[in-house]
Amino acid sequence: MAPRPLHVAVLGATGAVGRALLQALEESELPLRSLRLLASDRSAGAEVEFRGEGERVEPVGEGSFAGCDLALFAAGAAAARRWIPAARAAGAAAVDLSPAFCDDPQVPLAVAELSAGALDAVGPGGLVACPGAPAAQLALALAPVSAAAGLERVAVVSLEAVSAGGQKGVEELEAELRAMLSFQEPPPPSVLPHRVAFNAVPQVGAFAAGGASDEEQRTVAELRRLLGHAGLPVSVTALSVPVFYGHTHVVSVRTTRPLSPEAAREALKAAPSVKLLDAPGEGIYPMPMLAVTDDAVLVGRVRADASQERGLELVVAGDNLRRAAVNAVAVARRLAERLGRDA
Amino acid sequence: MAPRPLHVAVLGATGAVGRALLQALEESELPLRSLRLLASDRSAGAEVEFRGEGERVEPVGEGSFAGCDLALFAAGAAAARRWIPAARAAGAAAVDLSPAFCDDPQVPLAVAELSAGALDAVGPGGLVACPGAPAAQLALALAPVSAAAGLERVAVVSLEAVSAGGQKGVEELEAELRAMLSFQEPPPPSVLPHRVAFNAVPQVGAFAAGGASDEEQRTVAELRRLLGHAGLPVSVTALSVPVFYGHTHVVSVRTTRPLSPEAAREALKAAPSVKLLDAPGEGIYPMPMLAVTDDAVLVGRVRADASQERGLELVVAGDNLRRAAVNAVAVARRLAERLGRDA
Repeated sequence: MAPRPLHVAVLGATGAVGRALLQALEESELPLRSLRLLASDRSAGAEVEFRGEGERVEPVGEGSFAGCDLALFAAGAAAARRWIPAARAAGAAAVDLSPAFCDDPQVPLAVAELSAGALDAVGPGGLVACPGAPAAQLALALAPVSAAAGLERVAVVSLEAVSAGGQKGVEELEAELRAMLSFQEPPPPSVLPHRVAFNAVPQVGAFAAGGASDEEQRTVAELRRLLGHAGLPVSVTALSVPVFYGHTHVVSVRTTRPLSPEAAREALKAAPSVKLLDAPGEGIYPMPMLAVTDDAVLVGRVRADASQERGLELVVAGDNLRRAAVNAVAVARRLAERLGRDA
Repeated sequence: MAPRPLHVAVLGATGAVGRALLQALEESELPLRSLRLLASDRSAGAEVEFRGEGERVEPVGEGSFAGCDLALFAAGAAAARRWIPAARAAGAAAVDLSPAFCDDPQVPLAVAELSAGALDAVGPGGLVACPGAPAAQLALALAPVSAAAGLERVAVVSLEAVSAGGQKGVEELEAELRAMLSFQEPPPPSVLPHRVAFNAVPQVGAFAAGGASDEEQRTVAELRRLLGHAGLPVSVTALSVPVFYGHTHVVSVRTTRPLSPEAAREALKAAPSVKLLDAPGEGIYPMPMLAVTDDAVLVGRVRADASQERGLELVVAGDNLRRAAVNAVAVARRLAERLGRDA
């Protein structure tokens, strides 16, 4: 049954995540009755193109969500906390791309391909949180391995693109590179804690007790939830690298039952939103360069981990902005099947 | 006892490794009676500055090593295989920085700080192989952990600078960045298998059966030898990243006996050629940016690995060219104590 056209609002349409979200929405089959673009900051008043039309971005206010079926939040955590209650009170189902509600056990955390059951329980006034890009990519790559052989342990080194810090992160790397290639001092960093050009910075977010960063802790917690395995031993080390778009994850897992690299490849080939790129001898493997603008998560270099029993190593790459956007739209589309109201 | 001044020859003085080697030699206390700079390629005839003097690079030939006490090989594996026998036949002790002899069990593989015993058995006509930068850096960082608590398993993700491919690797990344920042197509890659600008390439060297690359296999084998632990389970995944100088290694180990992060830090603090940079809350941790021109290997982000028993994670960074050069000179200095001849 095709969903009925929806009244949709988007908060934060002018940021890096918001623009990726609008693009995914343009390309999707989600039927729109109306689209209201909202901003909580000085980008209100800007005009954004959507399906060939110029759409004015309005300042968000208490009445902004009246009549909305679905509200997508591509702004930061503070804006999400401020405005999601208003959207829900107005009867809209809210989909949040910020980390605001990711660790709230009352709020389903969804990757559309893995969380259909949880999404089918969300109705008008409901809320769905979308995971950060690292956990979203890792969950898609590891779910088929988990289904095939169980997971006993997961260790991840996450090489994260500067667009994780939004458009400002992209501009920071670009300014550093332009300066340094002209033999000038790079400008002092503001988004990242250190210069990222020609560097690898082992800090994404702030550090908590125990020595893990926010991003590392968030990825561990989200991955456990998405894989439905609350006690799964997971370690994540996250670094910012001089890449604009596309996260790379080097993953080592220990499975519960033996799983050959060949069997793992078969499971990955059959998995939704996963593209197996695994012919290393021909130079074919996942890279952020290839992941950019690909909706799928790329997985390759699947091989036995010689350092542990039932160990398997793989490399995962995905377009961090695009994957978050495509996931939010897929979540919205799933919700839409139950939300269509009479106009 | 101060060593007597030596007659020294250097093959490959004009490459990236060779220039780093000459700089380390200039700064060292190795007493030189003479220095002969040699090349096997078209760089013969070039002039190189050493301790304020212009030194002419001569073409290497059968007679080049006559009277030499010590011959340092900073050229590639093919040149090493071709010319090391001539140097040894002439009575020189040879120190090779190429991978040519790294897996030869008859040839000692040396990190000066860890291999004093093996070096003391090398006399005139002997040969010492120096490990690649990844294993050299990892061995210095892991030897104190091994001594404190034993090692049961080591897993490494190695983020490697393009200077691992010599000056041509550096030029390739620079050309790609200049093109892309001017919105031009980057030139096709020649040193690396793919574009490395704004990318992470999970291939260093060629691939062998089992799915590991040359560089990964070499690092595993060398690390086992340097740690004196032939059966140690080790996995390495190596990626080229858009960094000119400085390798970064994200390391996870399982120790034999329990070792707290605090105790590991104490052991690292006391270790030779290791600099502990471990105050993440203040933004202090190893990065290639900080490793450049530092003779020490930087170690930090030491923390418990929550995904395994007796697990410890750490981040290691070192200047790949500088570390290889400083190690070769330290090896040479150790040999010099036994090589000084009457002129």
